[in-house]
Amino acid sequence: MTGNNQPIKGFRFSAIAAGVKKAGTERLDLALIASDIPAQAAAVTTRNLVCAAPVEIVRERLQSGLCQAALMNSGNANAYTGAQGKSDAYELTELTAKKLGISPELIVPMSTGVIGNPLPMERLRPKIPPLVERLDSSSYMDVAHAIMTTDTKPKTGILDSETSTTPFRILGMAKGAGMIAPDMATLLAVILTDVKVPPSLLKEFLVQAAAETFNRVTIDGDTSTNDTLLVLSGGHQGAIDLGQNSSDEESFFSALKTACRDLSRQIVRDGEGVTKVVDIHVLGTKNEADALKVARKIAESPLVKTAFHGEDPNWGRIVCSAGRAGVVFRPDNLDLSIGGIPIVRNGFLVSEDWETAAHAAMQQPEFTVELDLKMGNSSTTVLTTDFSEEYVSINADYRS
Amino acid sequence: MTGNNQPIKGFRFSAIAAGVKKAGTERLDLALIASDIPAQAAAVTTRNLVCAAPVEIVRERLQSGLCQAALMNSGNANAYTGAQGKSDAYELTELTAKKLGISPELIVPMSTGVIGNPLPMERLRPKIPPLVERLDSSSYMDVAHAIMTTDTKPKTGILDSETSTTPFRILGMAKGAGMIAPDMATLLAVILTDVKVPPSLLKEFLVQAAAETFNRVTIDGDTSTNDTLLVLSGGHQGAIDLGQNSSDEESFFSALKTACRDLSRQIVRDGEGVTKVVDIHVLGTKNEADALKVARKIAESPLVKTAFHGEDPNWGRIVCSAGRAGVVFRPDNLDLSIGGIPIVRNGFLVSEDWETAAHAAMQQPEFTVELDLKMGNSSTTVLTTDFSEEYVSINADYRS
Repeated sequence: MTGNNQPIKGFRFSAIAAGVKKAGTERLDLALIASDIPAQAAAVTTRNLVCAAPVEIVRERLQSGLCQAALMNSGNANAYTGAQGKSDAYELTELTAKKLGISPELIVPMSTGVIGNPLPMERLRPKIPPLVERLDSSSYMDVAHAIMTTDTKPKTGILDSETSTTPFRILGMAKGAGMIAPDMATLLAVILTDVKVPPSLLKEFLVQAAAETFNRVTIDGDTSTNDTLLVLSGGHQGAIDLGQNSSDEESFFSALKTACRDLSRQIVRDGEGVTKVVDIHVLGTKNEADALKVARKIAESPLVKTAFHGEDPNWGRIVCSAGRAGVVFRPDNLDLSIGGIPIVRNGFLVSEDWETAAHAAMQQPEFTVELDLKMGNSSTTVLTTDFSEEYVSINADYRS
Repeated sequence: MTGNNQPIKGFRFSAIAAGVKKAGTERLDLALIASDIPAQAAAVTTRNLVCAAPVEIVRERLQSGLCQAALMNSGNANAYTGAQGKSDAYELTELTAKKLGISPELIVPMSTGVIGNPLPMERLRPKIPPLVERLDSSSYMDVAHAIMTTDTKPKTGILDSETSTTPFRILGMAKGAGMIAPDMATLLAVILTDVKVPPSLLKEFLVQAAAETFNRVTIDGDTSTNDTLLVLSGGHQGAIDLGQNSSDEESFFSALKTACRDLSRQIVRDGEGVTKVVDIHVLGTKNEADALKVARKIAESPLVKTAFHGEDPNWGRIVCSAGRAGVVFRPDNLDLSIGGIPIVRNGFLVSEDWETAAHAAMQQPEFTVELDLKMGNSSTTVLTTDFSEEYVSINADYRS
């Protein structure tokens, strides 16, 4: 443990109220994470054709594999803001770089909030110097607060692990409030580690970890313009080099996946109007891609999600969703259980009173749906939520 | 006009309360449509891998291109009921055929309602003889009522048109309450016409008409196990033969499309919890398939649909949905309007106060979203709805 005063070696944090959405408010909405030295860096970003200006800059600047700071704001996504949006983001990173005394190429912007509005530059510019001045080793929770939009709580996690020779740590923070948050401002996440991982390996690990965690959750099936998951590694002199020891690589990859899984589950739990968190486990497919197609169709079906909300073991909707996933299977041979209660076995409804038991299982805040298609040995799990009246209310009139 | 006592030449109707869902209720839930002679017939059915027993029988029996009667019920979808479901459906059509004095091969079953429960055969069997005895020329509205589930009103339409030589009529009826209704019981529709169209041509016309109408609407993006759209043509001696006159073919096809469009719009308007009906018009694509991909993504996005519910011209969500449709376009060059109010032109927000005007347009029960991607000359329109708190309530606990 490095202690709460320095939760992760090599990184400093700062957050400030800049009135991004509305002048004069005291809410933290501008944040900075800075590494002591240029860190090894990798990112995964949204696959939406329409992407925000900061996402474009992240892609450009991380080509080098190095990054020393992330400048983040909530309240404005700087998306669909054209050339102005990009030049604004460049300018802010330049101001930050100047104050930090480093190259702007080493700073990435990350934004979340309403789209289509230019950044309020006149309010942001003067906040950069005090933001940099306030950097300290301990304030990561302030950063986590500053990137929240409709999140009801900050999402952070610290994970300790070790290589064959030495302990290391991963610190993560994220904002979500839905895999898609209102106005597509959605997912921003930063993962920091005190172990030094070569950038190409870091990227490879991150892509794979994201595929198995962040990309296996869904609130409403939408994809944002701003999704960015950034990892910075070894931000201090003398950081342990991961090297090429394959068992060390495995330790790091495993810890990274755990950190990503923990953050993505926190995001789902705090999804808009969410009252149920459900693991959709599909097994018995010919390959993982098939399992994923089926799990996603189930996870994204409004009829399945409203049934979850009603704690109604309406298994027919689950089977029906699976049937439209474009994957061939035998409906008359599948097994289905909800909350561990077998409902369908070999295509037949079980004879016991599954209804009462399954309803009881669904009264829990988290439960599992397991669908075995018996076509092969592959499987996957997608994390989803219910659809509540509150989800509708939150999103019906978000901007006002 | 043939008058209300015989709304369509060659067909008779009957409906009865059989207590399908619950014994002893007075609700009409079993219905029969019978043609005086074997009619030319075609159908389109669900593309879900999991399909109901009656759907399988429709596919088998319409191979012949002839059909003389449709036996329909609500309250039970006879889906996911295995071999029992199929033998039950066969038995009911056989009882009906016997009483009508025709071959069972000429009767198709159509069911809608809860899935996973066997049909209550002991209650249905004794109702077949009185159902047949009550057939008359005028009771089509009773049939439209008998197939309703969560529909709040029956959906019917009569359309008069003419070939080059003679007038003809199309009578349609449908049940919907959502492109997907609760428990996937969803769409059943029957279209009757007094003109005689060769079965192969009828099928071709029906597939094309459905593609442009029923398959261009969405409530929640799900696909049912029971969707069936049946057309019966020329159910009487001396029916006008459509022949091979291409202008007559065009007249009929056009009338069929109009009838399908009218029924599908009625279904959308009566969708579960629907307060807004929205035409998503996408144009300027390289081909119609691209336009359809984009229109569907917009039409099915929960964030777009909740914004419709809130009468919020949250155009960013529309652009974002378009961006994830898998179609390449230039976000910085598109035009977007809501309710006829221009919002984005050539990728830039218009300078006028579009917000007030667009909000006012969205207060209407029906409005249009128009997105021009300027990549080509193709276009399409998808009809969708808002997502309301009531949709969630209706579906959270449908079965109880």
